[in-house]
Amino acid sequence: CTATLAAAQQSSVTIFGVLDVGMQRIKNGSKSLNLESIDGLQTSRIGFRGQENLGNGLSASFHLEGAIGPDVGAGGDWRRRATVSLASKDAGELRLGRDYTPTFWNISKFNAFGTNGVGAASNLVYGFDGASGTAKTVIRSDNSIGYFLPEGLGGVYGQAMVAAGEGSTGRYVGARIGYAGAGLDVALGVSSTDNTLAGDKFKVINLGGSYSIGPLKLLGLYHVSKQTTREQKNYVFGAHYAVGSGIIRASYVNAHSRNSANGEDYTGKLIALGYVHNLSKRTSLYATASQVDNSKTGRFLIPGGSAIIAGQDSSGLEAGIYHSF
Amino acid sequence: CTATLAAAQQSSVTIFGVLDVGMQRIKNGSKSLNLESIDGLQTSRIGFRGQENLGNGLSASFHLEGAIGPDVGAGGDWRRRATVSLASKDAGELRLGRDYTPTFWNISKFNAFGTNGVGAASNLVYGFDGASGTAKTVIRSDNSIGYFLPEGLGGVYGQAMVAAGEGSTGRYVGARIGYAGAGLDVALGVSSTDNTLAGDKFKVINLGGSYSIGPLKLLGLYHVSKQTTREQKNYVFGAHYAVGSGIIRASYVNAHSRNSANGEDYTGKLIALGYVHNLSKRTSLYATASQVDNSKTGRFLIPGGSAIIAGQDSSGLEAGIYHSF
Amino acid sequence: CTATLAAAQQSSVTIFGVLDVGMQRIKNGSKSLNLESIDGLQTSRIGFRGQENLGNGLSASFHLEGAIGPDVGAGGDWRRRATVSLASKDAGELRLGRDYTPTFWNISKFNAFGTNGVGAASNLVYGFDGASGTAKTVIRSDNSIGYFLPEGLGGVYGQAMVAAGEGSTGRYVGARIGYAGAGLDVALGVSSTDNTLAGDKFKVINLGGSYSIGPLKLLGLYHVSKQTTREQKNYVFGAHYAVGSGIIRASYVNAHSRNSANGEDYTGKLIALGYVHNLSKRTSLYATASQVDNSKTGRFLIPGGSAIIAGQDSSGLEAGIYHSF
Repeated sequence: CTATLAAAQQSSVTIFGVLDVGMQRIKNGSKSLNLESIDGLQTSRIGFRGQENLGNGLSASFHLEGAIGPDVGAGGDWRRRATVSLASKDAGELRLGRDYTPTFWNISKFNAFGTNGVGAASNLVYGFDGASGTAKTVIRSDNSIGYFLPEGLGGVYGQAMVAAGEGSTGRYVGARIGYAGAGLDVALGVSSTDNTLAGDKFKVINLGGSYSIGPLKLLGLYHVSKQTTREQKNYVFGAHYAVGSGIIRASYVNAHSRNSANGEDYTGKLIALGYVHNLSKRTSLYATASQVDNSKTGRFLIPGGSAIIAGQDSSGLEAGIYHSF
Repeated sequence: CTATLAAAQQSSVTIFGVLDVGMQRIKNGSKSLNLESIDGLQTSRIGFRGQENLGNGLSASFHLEGAIGPDVGAGGDWRRRATVSLASKDAGELRLGRDYTPTFWNISKFNAFGTNGVGAASNLVYGFDGASGTAKTVIRSDNSIGYFLPEGLGGVYGQAMVAAGEGSTGRYVGARIGYAGAGLDVALGVSSTDNTLAGDKFKVINLGGSYSIGPLKLLGLYHVSKQTTREQKNYVFGAHYAVGSGIIRASYVNAHSRNSANGEDYTGKLIALGYVHNLSKRTSLYATASQVDNSKTGRFLIPGGSAIIAGQDSSGLEAGIYHSF
Repeated sequence: CTATLAAAQQSSVTIFGVLDVGMQRIKNGSKSLNLESIDGLQTSRIGFRGQENLGNGLSASFHLEGAIGPDVGAGGDWRRRATVSLASKDAGELRLGRDYTPTFWNISKFNAFGTNGVGAASNLVYGFDGASGTAKTVIRSDNSIGYFLPEGLGGVYGQAMVAAGEGSTGRYVGARIGYAGAGLDVALGVSSTDNTLAGDKFKVINLGGSYSIGPLKLLGLYHVSKQTTREQKNYVFGAHYAVGSGIIRASYVNAHSRNSANGEDYTGKLIALGYVHNLSKRTSLYATASQVDNSKTGRFLIPGGSAIIAGQDSSGLEAGIYHSF
């Protein structure tokens, strides 16, 4: 078929990326540390992607994306995403490789600071059980097969993922279903990961949403992580308010841990306030202040500073430059 | 000279690559393992290459190519190939850097599954002496200087390579000479590598060929590896048969090892059958089944699964998506 | 503003790099070693850079550059440079990330062989105190904030850099000021690095210059490194002489070390002679010979060969191909 041949003969690759560098002051307990910080607004990265039209509504595509650490020149892998896809306009997309888990997207999308910088809700969501470990599928999964619903379902979107454990931990099954329309965006995610060789399941369920009215966008997230008797519950509220070519961002994050590694229950709270000034669609300046309060044996913290003792507080201040290409 | 200046002022870089991901089931002995597999049809990779016309039939070029592991997001080096070349239309090409060895190409080109996937002849050719080591020059060599005959020699092609040992193992000398024309392609390769610090030579000689008649292509390879008293002989037969926009592939590989590490002789056999369905020139779906039978102390296997005990059999089944850019 | 929006909608990325491979013979003391050498003329590399016009003389830009080892296919990080910049035509450039230190540039620019190959002055400048360590900021610094004077200051140029120690060694402060015009280029650099956890300062001061008259360019550098009681002084003289499409290069480097690690003073001298033949602006062939003479306990050497005993001499011979894209 002529269309297929023509498509096969043209191959275009898009290079894209982000450099985001700033200065940060983290105070954990009584110890302060000044840092050159990265990724305060978006994670620094470089990537390559492309799509091939196969005709009849079918397409093949690839996406390679790796993190960069511009403070020290780090980089080299494609562990942000490395996938190949076959997609049909009517039937949806089949995607294989290393990719984000469905449950990650609710954490990322439904809090005012995403998963970057001192104000990110992820500072209190990722750290299951305070200082204990977390399943390696909280953000992404190796060895995954994903399916994405096609567009044109009246605002309904969704995805499901399974990932092979390959004889080790990390076997994952999860899904996310949402609706976006008329200023509203709401989604539910669930997942289960084989997190120990004995087969203990790390389970996540989260429900998030956002609603835009004029210059204001409200965001909310409820997130639960469980493994055997341990449990962490988070609720997150936030807002964006557009002023001129900038956005004011505010967030409140609550984390409550039950049956922690040392047997206790504790609570942590994060409040954050920040401003993003857009110099263009590709370039911004930003500043954020954040404070974490721990109760009892809580050891929640803003990462990057000194270690903290249970119950100590943590605060962070950062300002930086974001540039995308 | 005007032509040289014009060439010097234009610099174009081509980005190219492959993403190849699928599912695999490997059964070694009585143990089965399900995997997200990669590189079933071609090795996943990203590369950059370019050429500069220097005038008078002279050109300079570079080639950088590194493997990608899309199942886990691996990547970062250029160990598939990293070379700079000076070439003349009349005198041939001088190539420096890390490159494929001449003897590799006969393994790759003259078997029905190349060196990728569960059906690859390389599964029984690379593994000199069953479970023992192999020279690091079986596929590529560091520190190499290569020479390639120019085109236009009536179908005769050839290359030679020397590589510096730099005070360690790996000093290599090898060559390959072939003829391609009228559906026939046949080539002879020889090499010697200093494989131990005592100077033991790992020697390879191989002779391969293919012949195309209409939709059928027949492939054959005879390959011998030797080091001191150890020896492995392989013979490989295969076929490609084009059907519509696909290719049926079949292969038989025999490996016979003499004076192995534990003093015994043994034989392994691989049979493989597969189908490649081309969605376009750039994108294919494929499936392959393969079976390895070991005699006596043989430990030949399809890589990726559990370890095997001498004499156990190995089988593999895979299906995947190949996409190039 | 229309101009800003237009700029925001176009994103262009430049891919650039160098492949430089050759052969080298290094003789240290009585031991000779043959190597496939790299980076004899310029360091092999790949990079991505781009610039965005923000309007009103403002621009944002990024620069990612990582070394390549084409002899072994090494690569993967961005440790040559990983920066994001905001620049104003009138006020200069603010640059954040991993970058070259100001004091490095005088070493690189004001000797006939730069910092590459057997003839490089850096062979005797980088090695503070002969065989002892050196601050990690001699070439580049992590966690840096740099400022560069704008153009249009009547030939005056300059830069300053501070880098965060982040609770470890490497806190850096340095600056460079120079003048270029009418064939003359001269610059002064100073820096101080916290080089031990006890806070010992590694201090550098250097003054370099070059003067071009017709086909001849003369280069000179005076460089002093100090830490507590240790001190190394270098003076370097060199010349480039253009002949047809090539350049003859010659260099003399003197290094004098006081209060070395083993308490002695010693002197090393390097002489080098070479020729670069330009096939185009992008591609060259080159050859260099170099000799290092050590006095007393001196252990200066041309890197890449065997270890030397104090007082032994070192010599190097190399020829290679340089190709840029």
